Amino acid sequence: MERFRVTFYPDNKTVEVEKDRTILSAALSAGVYIASHCGGDGVCGRCKVILKKGRVSAQSQGMLSEKERAEGVCLACLTAVEDNLEIEVPASSRLNLEAPGAEYSLPEDVETLQATAQDLFVHSPLATKIFLNIPEPKLEEKLSDTERLLQQVPFIEPPGHLHMGLSVLRGLSELLRASDWKVTVTLAKKHEGVAELINVEPGDTSQRNFGICFDIGTTTLSGQMVDLNSKKVLGTKATYNKQAAFGSDIITRIMYARNKNGLEELHRAVVDDMNEIIREFVRDQAIDLNDVTCVVCSGNTTMMHLLLRVDPTYIRKEPYTPVFNSVGMLRAAEAGILINPRGLLACVPGVASYVGGDITAGVLSSGQYEEEGLTVFIDIGTNGEIVLGNREFLVCAAASAGPAFEGSGVSCGMRAARGAIQKVVINSKDLSCWLGVIGNGRPSGICGSGYIDAIAEMLCAGVIDKNGKIREIDNPRIRQGELGKEFVLAFASQSAEGKDIVITEPDIENLKRAKAAIYSAISVLVRHLDLDFSRIDKVFIAGGFGTYLNTENAVRIGLLPDISREKFSFIGNSSLSGSRQVLLSWEAMRRADQIARKMNYVELSVEPGYMDEYMAALFFPHTDLGLFPTVRQQKI
Amino acid sequence: MERFRVTFYPDNKTVEVEKDRTILSAALSAGVYIASHCGGDGVCGRCKVILKKGRVSAQSQGMLSEKERAEGVCLACLTAVEDNLEIEVPASSRLNLEAPGAEYSLPEDVETLQATAQDLFVHSPLATKIFLNIPEPKLEEKLSDTERLLQQVPFIEPPGHLHMGLSVLRGLSELLRASDWKVTVTLAKKHEGVAELINVEPGDTSQRNFGICFDIGTTTLSGQMVDLNSKKVLGTKATYNKQAAFGSDIITRIMYARNKNGLEELHRAVVDDMNEIIREFVRDQAIDLNDVTCVVCSGNTTMMHLLLRVDPTYIRKEPYTPVFNSVGMLRAAEAGILINPRGLLACVPGVASYVGGDITAGVLSSGQYEEEGLTVFIDIGTNGEIVLGNREFLVCAAASAGPAFEGSGVSCGMRAARGAIQKVVINSKDLSCWLGVIGNGRPSGICGSGYIDAIAEMLCAGVIDKNGKIREIDNPRIRQGELGKEFVLAFASQSAEGKDIVITEPDIENLKRAKAAIYSAISVLVRHLDLDFSRIDKVFIAGGFGTYLNTENAVRIGLLPDISREKFSFIGNSSLSGSRQVLLSWEAMRRADQIARKMNYVELSVEPGYMDEYMAALFFPHTDLGLFPTVRQQKI
Repeated sequence: MERFRVTFYPDNKTVEVEKDRTILSAALSAGVYIASHCGGDGVCGRCKVILKKGRVSAQSQGMLSEKERAEGVCLACLTAVEDNLEIEVPASSRLNLEAPGAEYSLPEDVETLQATAQDLFVHSPLATKIFLNIPEPKLEEKLSDTERLLQQVPFIEPPGHLHMGLSVLRGLSELLRASDWKVTVTLAKKHEGVAELINVEPGDTSQRNFGICFDIGTTTLSGQMVDLNSKKVLGTKATYNKQAAFGSDIITRIMYARNKNGLEELHRAVVDDMNEIIREFVRDQAIDLNDVTCVVCSGNTTMMHLLLRVDPTYIRKEPYTPVFNSVGMLRAAEAGILINPRGLLACVPGVASYVGGDITAGVLSSGQYEEEGLTVFIDIGTNGEIVLGNREFLVCAAASAGPAFEGSGVSCGMRAARGAIQKVVINSKDLSCWLGVIGNGRPSGICGSGYIDAIAEMLCAGVIDKNGKIREIDNPRIRQGELGKEFVLAFASQSAEGKDIVITEPDIENLKRAKAAIYSAISVLVRHLDLDFSRIDKVFIAGGFGTYLNTENAVRIGLLPDISREKFSFIGNSSLSGSRQVLLSWEAMRRADQIARKMNYVELSVEPGYMDEYMAALFFPHTDLGLFPTVRQQKI
Repeated sequence: MERFRVTFYPDNKTVEVEKDRTILSAALSAGVYIASHCGGDGVCGRCKVILKKGRVSAQSQGMLSEKERAEGVCLACLTAVEDNLEIEVPASSRLNLEAPGAEYSLPEDVETLQATAQDLFVHSPLATKIFLNIPEPKLEEKLSDTERLLQQVPFIEPPGHLHMGLSVLRGLSELLRASDWKVTVTLAKKHEGVAELINVEPGDTSQRNFGICFDIGTTTLSGQMVDLNSKKVLGTKATYNKQAAFGSDIITRIMYARNKNGLEELHRAVVDDMNEIIREFVRDQAIDLNDVTCVVCSGNTTMMHLLLRVDPTYIRKEPYTPVFNSVGMLRAAEAGILINPRGLLACVPGVASYVGGDITAGVLSSGQYEEEGLTVFIDIGTNGEIVLGNREFLVCAAASAGPAFEGSGVSCGMRAARGAIQKVVINSKDLSCWLGVIGNGRPSGICGSGYIDAIAEMLCAGVIDKNGKIREIDNPRIRQGELGKEFVLAFASQSAEGKDIVITEPDIENLKRAKAAIYSAISVLVRHLDLDFSRIDKVFIAGGFGTYLNTENAVRIGLLPDISREKFSFIGNSSLSGSRQVLLSWEAMRRADQIARKMNYVELSVEPGYMDEYMAALFFPHTDLGLFPTVRQQKI
């Protein structure tokens, strides 16, 4: 097949691709990340690039003006490579990607909460290393090398349920003798009572056993490296999910997967992200990749399909059926994840097409499944998922919130990483702003918790009305921007990149729709069970906002219901902490499985009154102020 | 690496090999089978070939005369390729290989015996196909395709113990919809209570499920194709084990495996044999290879190591330790066996280095492990293995008999296939011979049971003395041959290939050593338990003699002890029938595992008096005629 070279500027990165590949796909291969919210349908107009040299074939590009076409602008998703090309990618078309693996650390209180939940389960990592000092063979015995070795492995009952692959068997006899019968075996749990002996190494390496847990979000991917012996978290890293280049939400990705190689591209994108994080971990910690024996992932159902390269088509077609909610234990290599070649991959089981393993992990790590009183678990990500219940029952639902609270799809949004504004206080007299920045340096952008604070403060200061429109006030912070009115949170002189950090009216609209989707989902679910908010004893709030959530402000903008504030607890990324529990305990894995099976799913789209609830919630805090009595008292 | 072309005549087969490969190895690659009893040590002198053209490098070839060297004769195992070569392979150096898969059928009585034993176990094939008519998904449900499918699978308990690999998962959603939710699944048993869903096919293919069981002997390889639904045996095929090109017994093969690529060559040889048999079965029966879902093998421990390409080195080094006696369920593809790509491979568990899964299978299929009285199980192959015991205990031992009873290593020997002389009666007056030939055609050679008859008859007719020497008698059947005196069983005019079929003095010596090894092993084992022959209630005799064994003659030559003849039963190839039982029943597999664990192994080489017993048995029937009272009465 004919192949062409495509060079992207100003990155000056070149890639060779076959004829007819889209420029969008070529850019990803070159490591140039172009925004594409619609997943290549040519409807969002985000992926504009400028053709500097060469010949292309373009499908209908109705999104482009005459002028743009004259200037060589084309949509990367609809334009195919027919020649050696030179392409300019304007800043406005770039995906807001940080260097993968930029770290953030959880504050101590969240770490402590998670450590406590961890201890609910017996320490029994999915992959265990055991040092064996094996007696040498004797003539009177008939034992094989394998039997001799297995006899020394504790806790294996009944016999025959410890399996060993041929590749291990093949090197065994020489290895045992060369290491003077002192070896370390790695056991991987496969089923209840069944383990596989995945590795035998000479000498005692039992202290070098590491695992990585991942939360694979639609927008953000987070990973933690864990010492499987000491249970200690050695590091946490996060990155944007590179799949965002193919669409910002689940639906556009599922549609993109229908393209030729689309599924493969989406699969590669997330696996590459994971492998980069893994590589950085092992480099930072000076760990041999072979000593990484297990990876546990939690994520929404579509993310899990794409991770395993399983067709997600029917997730978005009625009756919304995933291929799997639960897969057994896999080998990481089967999914292209680069750890020990025989290392494990476990995925936390999900519930339904729109309630995935990330929610199961959240219910697990929050302890909701053991609560006596009525509790609500809310996970705010690109989708918002709600679980209502206790030790007796669990009911769940999902609302499509969009990625605004993850700092994506908003003009100055960013992940909750170093430099993100996570706390905002606005002086209502002069509208001056106090900003709390992660890492305490200059701000680079705004993360989810920062947006919640900012909107609540703008409401209090009268900067915006209940509809989210910016008022006409004579103040240098309020001005007309390219996309309409905007409020300047930080001026260029204060910011890390020397650019104004602003909140625009479209940003506020975006966040309003996101909070309305989540609030109305909670509301409909509570009503579905013939309950009301007063019956709720606890609310666990999870999500990638950052390390902090001002619940008062979250109520004030109408994201959370107006109930007693001490009932709220913010538990951070509970998907990640749940997957870490599974990594460290087979019992947690079994419990996650039980939780997923137990949870009943309510499909909001067919639930009566959901759209009305949503529409009513499209105000700050709500059209019905009677639902927010404490906010009404504050007279904002 | 430099490569050269080697052409073998008169076959006119050419192969390209890298520099420094031995001619023996090149010949195997070309499909030319050269005899090599010593396994390439250059000591047996069987692999003589003639260099017609080209340059070779030869190691010391002390086995060759001056004249031979002058004529270009070299030993294929010690001569390396240094040039493009032309090689003549004389008939005397060829391995006595029939076309693979030449069939023989078991006579009805043996079939009946085996069918009875079969019914001891519940029908539960290791791989099962089940047709599923799956209800279509509904909006009210949250079930994934996988769960929906697994819900329809009967007998899967507890949930989560039915595993599905990614390759099955990846095609599932389209397959289910394209086949209107009517599919056939193949379940493969992996552990107690654990199965893998290895295949999903559209429509109802549940009636097309086939398995193949193999007995992998050092000399002979036998296979049976079985309909896993009806339990019907669809065909039986056998071939010589092509590994014989690398040495006729286990020890020489283990030594050959130490060579560079030696293990790989031995592995390939047996796997090629199996794949040829499988190909012929599916061609004969017009079966799709994908409908062959399971292979079960039994064989001695070395054969199992070579099959799985596991280093057998320590089997022959004191304290004689195999790498494994039992492996779990494998995927056939892992060993290079070509059936359904996700099809199963099970190996019947063995006991020790010299008592393998073939013996476990024999004890299983004979029912010895359920007998109340004292029984002996004797398997006569290239090794002779003895098991003494009953439902209470099992004790076993192995004796190195050599392949004579399998028709190998004797001048006119052949496998018990069509054309083999299996019964012999000699008229003591004129020495005329009545021959019973398998298939009732003209004879091609002599199989094990034929040799037993022939020697017993020669003893009775006075043709040989008790030492096995041919007497000076004036009869056209007795003459001086190239290798010493010989007796003509069939003249060229009567034989299938137009060549005399003879028994030579070296043949008789060979058979005498074989029978002495087996008899003395039984004798020592009985004494080991402080018993004597009178206490034995039953003797099961297994082996590849053919379809028939004249037990009277077997006692007469001193192969079997002189006890009441009705205690003997000949059960044919019990390794094959045992592996068929396992193929058809997980319960049989579990029982085989119990038998292997229960059996105690006695190492004859360290057993006091074994060599004395062996030496005493090097007469027909024995130096101590008191041990053979009924033979003594016959005054031969």
